[in-house]
Amino acid sequence: MRKEIPIVSLLLLLPVCCHGADWKNFRADAKRMEERVSELSKFGANPEGGVSRVAFSDADVAGRKYIRALIEKAGLKVRVDAAGNIIGRREGRDPNLPVILFGSHLDSVPHGGNYDGDVGVLGALECIEILNEQHYVTSHPLEVVVFSDEEGGLTGSHAAAGELSPAALQLKSHSGKTIGEGIRFIGGDPDHLEAAKRNPSEILAYLELHIEQGGILEAEKINIGVVEGIVGINEWEVTVLGFPNHSGTTPMNQRKDALVAAARLVEAINQIAKNTPGRQVATVGKIAAEPGAPNVIPGKVVMTLEIRDLEKSKIDLVFGKIKSSADKIAADTGTTISLAALDVTAVPAPTDPRLRKVIQEAATGLGLTTKLMPSGAGHDAQDIARIAPIGMIFVPSIGGISHSPKEFTTASDMANGASVLLQSVLRVDEKACNLIPGFRRKRGPK
Amino acid sequence: MRKEIPIVSLLLLLPVCCHGADWKNFRADAKRMEERVSELSKFGANPEGGVSRVAFSDADVAGRKYIRALIEKAGLKVRVDAAGNIIGRREGRDPNLPVILFGSHLDSVPHGGNYDGDVGVLGALECIEILNEQHYVTSHPLEVVVFSDEEGGLTGSHAAAGELSPAALQLKSHSGKTIGEGIRFIGGDPDHLEAAKRNPSEILAYLELHIEQGGILEAEKINIGVVEGIVGINEWEVTVLGFPNHSGTTPMNQRKDALVAAARLVEAINQIAKNTPGRQVATVGKIAAEPGAPNVIPGKVVMTLEIRDLEKSKIDLVFGKIKSSADKIAADTGTTISLAALDVTAVPAPTDPRLRKVIQEAATGLGLTTKLMPSGAGHDAQDIARIAPIGMIFVPSIGGISHSPKEFTTASDMANGASVLLQSVLRVDEKACNLIPGFRRKRGPK
Repeated sequence: MRKEIPIVSLLLLLPVCCHGADWKNFRADAKRMEERVSELSKFGANPEGGVSRVAFSDADVAGRKYIRALIEKAGLKVRVDAAGNIIGRREGRDPNLPVILFGSHLDSVPHGGNYDGDVGVLGALECIEILNEQHYVTSHPLEVVVFSDEEGGLTGSHAAAGELSPAALQLKSHSGKTIGEGIRFIGGDPDHLEAAKRNPSEILAYLELHIEQGGILEAEKINIGVVEGIVGINEWEVTVLGFPNHSGTTPMNQRKDALVAAARLVEAINQIAKNTPGRQVATVGKIAAEPGAPNVIPGKVVMTLEIRDLEKSKIDLVFGKIKSSADKIAADTGTTISLAALDVTAVPAPTDPRLRKVIQEAATGLGLTTKLMPSGAGHDAQDIARIAPIGMIFVPSIGGISHSPKEFTTASDMANGASVLLQSVLRVDEKACNLIPGFRRKRGPK
Repeated sequence: MRKEIPIVSLLLLLPVCCHGADWKNFRADAKRMEERVSELSKFGANPEGGVSRVAFSDADVAGRKYIRALIEKAGLKVRVDAAGNIIGRREGRDPNLPVILFGSHLDSVPHGGNYDGDVGVLGALECIEILNEQHYVTSHPLEVVVFSDEEGGLTGSHAAAGELSPAALQLKSHSGKTIGEGIRFIGGDPDHLEAAKRNPSEILAYLELHIEQGGILEAEKINIGVVEGIVGINEWEVTVLGFPNHSGTTPMNQRKDALVAAARLVEAINQIAKNTPGRQVATVGKIAAEPGAPNVIPGKVVMTLEIRDLEKSKIDLVFGKIKSSADKIAADTGTTISLAALDVTAVPAPTDPRLRKVIQEAATGLGLTTKLMPSGAGHDAQDIARIAPIGMIFVPSIGGISHSPKEFTTASDMANGASVLLQSVLRVDEKACNLIPGFRRKRGPK
């Protein structure tokens, strides 16, 4: 059941909202966050201590039910949109203002951990809990969002940006269901996805708290990562064609071994990514040799190539070098090497400089150290960047481990992140109601 | 039904057998061999024009039935031994003499061709046909053998050498049956395999005609390969352990990428095999990276390593260099690399120098060009080498292609091979009855 915040309390709180400095002392509750992470980790628990709560599975539904109940208990009005995103709304003082949106996702990779996504959702909920405890009402409406199927391809945020294609609905998800079937399974309506599209003028800002998933913050003993952008992720399928032959009867100098050529390319990709100035990464994560028998010289190798960077031009530069290298290796080995684009549309998504400043100030105000850093991983925020200004807050991942049951973030770091999120939300709320020039437009006439 | 050769014809032919030179004009019939290859290729025909006649399949049984009928029609007494080997016997003039054994196999690899094994079986049968047509009776008994399940691990010849282990019977064959079930399916008796073991004193020599499966004879325009030995085949499983991590959040200089290390090792293996003087070959035919996702740095790579050479010491030398290289690569990349022996027991099997000489003389007598060469592929002969002197005759494989529907050998080359086989059998028969010093012992008292 939805709990309406009585108008009378809004009026009472009015003086605090835009003028008081009281809210700067608001802090997240580490113990509550830790308990909730622990509760949430029961849904889809795997034997290694993490979760396998893939989107659209029974565990996903159970985890969503648990979180929805908490959001409702916190007095928010909850709806599930056509893409299966859970949205909990807390009205602000001015119903004409655009919403401040924040959240993350609950689904995990297969054999995943208990922090990726969860910290962002529980951190967003923590902000609401603190505001409730402090009887604080913002000017802008707030919305906590739990995006559906982040790990399977940013399904929920694609839909929010109006970019979930009918073709994507046919793809098989880790749950075994197609994405379309999965959306229906969690309460969405895949036949009316357009209803999930958010109008840009409705959203003042999107903020997301997330674990870093890398080891930089821990290694440098820094509390908070202020994300400067989410890297573009481009992916190719590399096919090397040689000639399959009997491993015993074909002399070394008469071979066209596709795996030898592929091996040289793997090494070249690594060297190019390492030696080109910048922070780009390039990875070959999957490889198969055909026919794949110990006694047959591989005639074909298929492998993946993924390049990530904050700048599209850097991705293009690195790919160009790899392509030249592949051409040379093919000529040297008597093979042919083709690089077919699988997904080269995921362009980098810079965060909004004003939101970076807000997050920086929020962290500094809390006495926390910060570092400006890229997000090497993809996040729902990168989709929302196309319809609203985005900001992202990182907290340390111990050992840089992620997508693994060994994933871990301390309760103290989670609370730091949630406090920075809360302080950022309140700063956005205040600055926007002060009409900072150039900041986000208010909702205008259609 | 078995056709006995009447004693009266043996007596009539006696003067020819050991003294006449008439048999030097005996030639195989290319047209008959071509027709029979064509007939045989119907059993297990695959859409690409070859056969998928894997051992113990229905197609294998049908092919065996076809050949058995031909052997019986040629007057041989046929039995199937406990290992499923088909053995057709043609008595000689002296029942106390050891047998001259020759043949090959009928089973194919999955998606195989029409010549591997088949040419040796049909060539052996062709020898009998010619001897029958010429009413020629040898001193020694002759046996045509069709070994069972060559492609699945030299099953039939293992048993003939007394080395088919009970454990091997439990292995799954390409047919889906275990080898034990398969042997029973084709008429053998897996419970009494010891009955298939041949007594060394029973066998004067084993000769095998086979396609080269490599491209050397064709490239050098040579008719006949005189095989100097069958290479030893040693196999290892290589495991590279790095650290799996997120491809987006792990900087290039913080990675322990198992695939980058494995790629360097693939290249090193190729270079070592190429640059070490000799004819050894080394191959990585199979590779898998784990977890095997485009966006995860491989934490583990498993691949095969196979080294072949005619000399065990050369295999050991090459492996030693590869091991050193692996240790260095592991140290350079922060990974660990282990090389676990899978099968390092397949030692090289040299052919008998006296039989090489016989084959050489036979080919020269037929006006054919020859080349002394190793067999890079494994053959039943390598097992029989442990109980009898062996000789092998190669004929050209067009394009060096084998284990493929594209495998091809011309009718003329097949007939050349069968003629050399026949002339070799007759030379062994004559030389042995002339008691050439140092040649194979006659059957003595038990």
